[in-house]
This record gives sequence, C-alpha cells and structure tokens, in this order.
Amino acid sequence: MKKIYVAGIGPGGADGMTVRVQNALKESDVLCGYTVYIDLVRDMFPDKRTLTTPMTRETERCRMALEEAAAGNTVAMICSGDAGVYGMAGLIYELAQEYSDVEVEILPGVTAATSGAAVLGAPLIHDFAVISLSDLLTPWEKIEARLRCAAEADFVVCLYNPMSKKRSDYLKRACEIMGAHKSPDTVCGWVRNIGREGEEYQIMTLRELADAQIDMFTTVFVGNSQTRRIGDKMVTPRGYENKRR
Amino acid sequence: MKKIYVAGIGPGGADGMTVRVQNALKESDVLCGYTVYIDLVRDMFPDKRTLTTPMTRETERCRMALEEAAAGNTVAMICSGDAGVYGMAGLIYELAQEYSDVEVEILPGVTAATSGAAVLGAPLIHDFAVISLSDLLTPWEKIEARLRCAAEADFVVCLYNPMSKKRSDYLKRACEIMGAHKSPDTVCGWVRNIGREGEEYQIMTLRELADAQIDMFTTVFVGNSQTRRIGDKMVTPRGYENKRR
Repeated sequence: MKKIYVAGIGPGGADGMTVRVQNALKESDVLCGYTVYIDLVRDMFPDKRTLTTPMTRETERCRMALEEAAAGNTVAMICSGDAGVYGMAGLIYELAQEYSDVEVEILPGVTAATSGAAVLGAPLIHDFAVISLSDLLTPWEKIEARLRCAAEADFVVCLYNPMSKKRSDYLKRACEIMGAHKSPDTVCGWVRNIGREGEEYQIMTLRELADAQIDMFTTVFVGNSQTRRIGDKMVTPRGYENKRR
Repeated sequence: MKKIYVAGIGPGGADGMTVRVQNALKESDVLCGYTVYIDLVRDMFPDKRTLTTPMTRETERCRMALEEAAAGNTVAMICSGDAGVYGMAGLIYELAQEYSDVEVEILPGVTAATSGAAVLGAPLIHDFAVISLSDLLTPWEKIEARLRCAAEADFVVCLYNPMSKKRSDYLKRACEIMGAHKSPDTVCGWVRNIGREGEEYQIMTLRELADAQIDMFTTVFVGNSQTRRIGDKMVTPRGYENKRR
C-alpha cells in the first residue's frame, strides 16, 4: 500500500512527539517538510532521505511528498505542533485526490495552544478560541470579527502567528479590539520557543500585552474574565463562581 | 525536590502519549487519576502504586495527589487528552498554593480536538473554538452566547462533552443556535472512542447533526463556511477564496 503520513511532531524536542509519530518516522523512507522542522528531526534519523522546501512553498512541498509516495516510498510529511492546526493535513487531502492509490494517515501532535499553555500554567481550562493573526490567506476584517466575537463571549483566546515583519502592529490592534469587551486587567501571557532552546514566557495584563515585544516564534494567550495569576502562572478556573466549583 | 507531574496521556492507547509523558510515568512512584484513565496506563506500569477516585471527585483527587507528593513521592496526576484543556492542571495550581514545597510540572498531551480532527480528516486547519456543552460549572446562557458568537464569526467549532444522560437534547439546542449563522449544509462530523477500541466517525451536515445519536465518549466538529467533504473526510481549507491559496 502506498502511504503518506502527515505527522505533527509537537513543539520541537524529540521527547515532545508521540510514540506513534516516532514509530511512523522510523518506518518512513523519506521525511518531507519545511527546512526548520526537518532540522529538528534529522538528528534522530540521520540515515533517512529528506526533502525540504522553504516557508511559503506549501503546495509544492505537498505535491513533492505525494509524488514520492506514488513512486512507492513510505513518506512522512512533517509539521510542527499538530498536523491539522494550520498544518499541511488539509492541503494533502486536497491534492491527494489526484493520487488515488496513496493512502493518507494524519498523526496528531501537541499543538502550540496546549504546549504553550503548559508552560504558562493552565490558561485553557475553560472554553477557548484559536485565532491566527496572519492575513496572508484570510481577510483582516474576518480576523477582526473573530477577535471581537471571541472577546464578547468571554473565550480564552490563543493567538497563533501574532507577529511578522510586515505585521508589526497586528498584536496591538488585536488587543485593542478585544479590549472593547475584555478588561485591561485581563491576565495574559506569551511563550517563546516552546519546548526548544531559549524557551521563555511572561505573564502580564491585556494593557501591557498591547506593547509586548514578541517575535514570530511566540504564541500569545489572553485570559477570560475568571483567569487569574497564581504565583508566576496563568490559571483559568474550571467554571464560574455562581456554579458549584 | 518534591514533585507532581500533571500529565496528559492523549486519546488512550500507549502510543498516543508523548515520549516525555511516558518517561515521567516511568519515573513516578504513584499514578493518580480518574479510574478509567488509570486503567488505560496500568498495563504499561503494572508495578506502580495507583490512586483512583470516581468522576466528580476532582478536588479530592488533586488533594490526594498533592499529599502524596508532599510526603516525598514523585506523583503523576493523569488526565486524558491534554492536562490543561478542561483538565486537572488548573485545580492542581489552585490547591498547590497550600503545598509550597511541591513543584508542579504540566506535561501537555494530544487533546480530543486534534486527535479527533486527525480521524475526521482536517477540520481544524483554520481558526476554531472549543466549547464544552457541560453546564455543571458554567451557566447555560454563557454556553449559548459562545455558540452564537463562534457561529457568527465563522469559526470551526469543536464541542466537548456534547452529551450526558441529563443533557440529552443539548447537542440539538447547540445546533439550532449555531444554525442561526451557519448554513444547514455546513459540513460536520463526530468521532467516538478516539484512539481506542471501537473508534468510529461519521461526516454529515449541520441539519443531520442535530439528530445524531452520540454518547459521552464523542467529540463533535462543526465546519466553517469553507469546510467541505473530500471523499469520506472533512476538510477545512487554509484560507478564503478571495485570498491567494
């Protein structure tokens, strides 16, 4: 059977991936992915053939992987975090329609929302929304509407891609939009380089978050109305005070 | 150092946990958790001491685990999926304030949103909201407001705890609320027993989802306006048609 795994390797380190993913990589003939992620796994499997493409060449990368699988190789397409959260799983399914003899299997991993939450404490204990601030493929108005609705309904919010060179003020704009419904004292936090060398985090208020100095390797968390600071951690309670705790 | 790990073991099978979690369980003297989750790991570590409590005794369970850690044992508090998504991580931080010599470390795992998504295809490729339909600790009006806002902003929605004996009509009510902003033809899906024996899934429309026969081991997914069916899978595109794909 011709096979392609689309595997989420978690935040970065070898021990952040699931046993299932580790086994699938062992079993694969070829490892495909964005250069940075392939570098993360190359040390674990020095003898495997690897295929890499730069950041924005996703369609090309997926097609290359499917061609390898169609040629009879077992292929692992590697994504950071989870393969299905802003990952390659969807594009592989779309393109795989042209490769009917290739079986696709998605192997989930730990996405930055939950690996980042573990570093910050426990911000995602209650309902949450995950929003990417990248407007490369999504109209900014749509992103704004989501920020507004998520804040209005008191979701905890996790922001992916909060920053790039071209979008240096997007986090500030996002904070302003959410600030219409969330208190400026809302407990927030960011995590940088989750599970990798140089991991660091900071807890702050929504007011302070608007001017936070973050980079593209950062994931941002905005609490709900109940989220509080316990020591140096960000913790959201399991429910609301008017209900049994 | 006195230590408690709060570890997410993923969807169920031994190979769904991360290598890091597996190592932490090996290293622990005592494994604590809800009976069903402890049963999942007991086979892997037959010689470990285990402490279990039934479903609703979370505070008692966490306190028991912290007492064990305070007594000098390395303890692993085990959660299904991820420890920080409706898990015990928050409660442990709240209670750990009384045990200042116990170090808390949260070890993330694969939550049902992403393990379920991997079974269904790729529903979470774009912004999504995770909402629990359990009103045990949250007023139903709050849950309704979140469903409404998430639908209005065209989020993909993942529903945890969609069903219990006391709440047999909650999924239908949730579908009706989301139906005010989402088309009845919106592509939806459910997954049952993710990563465990008896795993099954079904793809359907929002109209059909309202009357779906599901149980408490089911996670439900409601697509955004762009989500479509490809073969027997549910796939959300990476962006919107008016933007470069």
